[in-house]
Amino acid sequence: MKLDLEHVRNILRRTPSTLNLLLHDLPEAWLMSNEGPDTWSPYDIVGHLIHGEETDWIPRARIILEDGESRAFTPFNRESMFEKSKGKSINELLDTFARLRAESLRELDELNLTPELLEKRGLHPELGRVTLSELLATWVVHDLSHIGQIVRVMSKQYGDAVGPWKAYLPVLTR
Amino acid sequence: MKLDLEHVRNILRRTPSTLNLLLHDLPEAWLMSNEGPDTWSPYDIVGHLIHGEETDWIPRARIILEDGESRAFTPFNRESMFEKSKGKSINELLDTFARLRAESLRELDELNLTPELLEKRGLHPELGRVTLSELLATWVVHDLSHIGQIVRVMSKQYGDAVGPWKAYLPVLTR
Repeated sequence: MKLDLEHVRNILRRTPSTLNLLLHDLPEAWLMSNEGPDTWSPYDIVGHLIHGEETDWIPRARIILEDGESRAFTPFNRESMFEKSKGKSINELLDTFARLRAESLRELDELNLTPELLEKRGLHPELGRVTLSELLATWVVHDLSHIGQIVRVMSKQYGDAVGPWKAYLPVLTR
Repeated sequence: MKLDLEHVRNILRRTPSTLNLLLHDLPEAWLMSNEGPDTWSPYDIVGHLIHGEETDWIPRARIILEDGESRAFTPFNRESMFEKSKGKSINELLDTFARLRAESLRELDELNLTPELLEKRGLHPELGRVTLSELLATWVVHDLSHIGQIVRVMSKQYGDAVGPWKAYLPVLTR
């Protein structure tokens, strides 16, 4: 499927409410459990998404529009949430994400992107040349992929509780 | 984690609204696209979840409570939605699922399950002996796993649109 800016907006604006529904007031054990050493809990993932709004998506779109390939993106710290989320409740994090995402979508509108601008190129510090259109598609897939990660991490907490049904649930061994 | 009936209810009651948020009024192309031959679209998955409410979870709980291991569960047809959903809009399916899930949760309450009843055993036609507790844990994981499948199927529609970022998005090749 080719990128459609209206679809991008349509999907991105659903994510804060989806996360709210999945995680608001969820018991601590479900929020804080992960998949084992060096993996993330649902709580960690919301912090990671917040950091994306602050430093990744719109900031990189602006770099592409303003500097093109002449200035590489600032590398994205995938794990800064371990420090930044400290002491915050999940409901606080969810509210912060919702506020930042609403701002990002407002800023996206204000960029007045045209098909020509969407093909504009930027420089990724590791991947090399990328387009603005690819950045926006990645934003969508990144959201969806972390929603998927959250439900996978949650599933695994009942990995033993399902007993013999484990054989029918590939999510538990992924 | 051991099964906690309050947690089971807490998670199961969120699923209809989560699906609504992800899929209500989503453009047709996103709803109807799947991962290739013999795979399911988000639209198909909602139909499959409806069929689970009608024939799997509460009906099997009742068989365990009433007949124990003396009567095997009726096998579950995982693909009956291809016929049953025909001609229905996604919003109709979402409403049906929400109604059925609310009924299921009411019926679950009415079963007045105790720790002893949760250990009661039933007979799965393929897996053999299972407990009511395992059935309920499977219900939770089944919900979460299909939410994960929906966002994975959606992600893949932008598998090419993300360009070089594909290398950072394992969801696209899963």
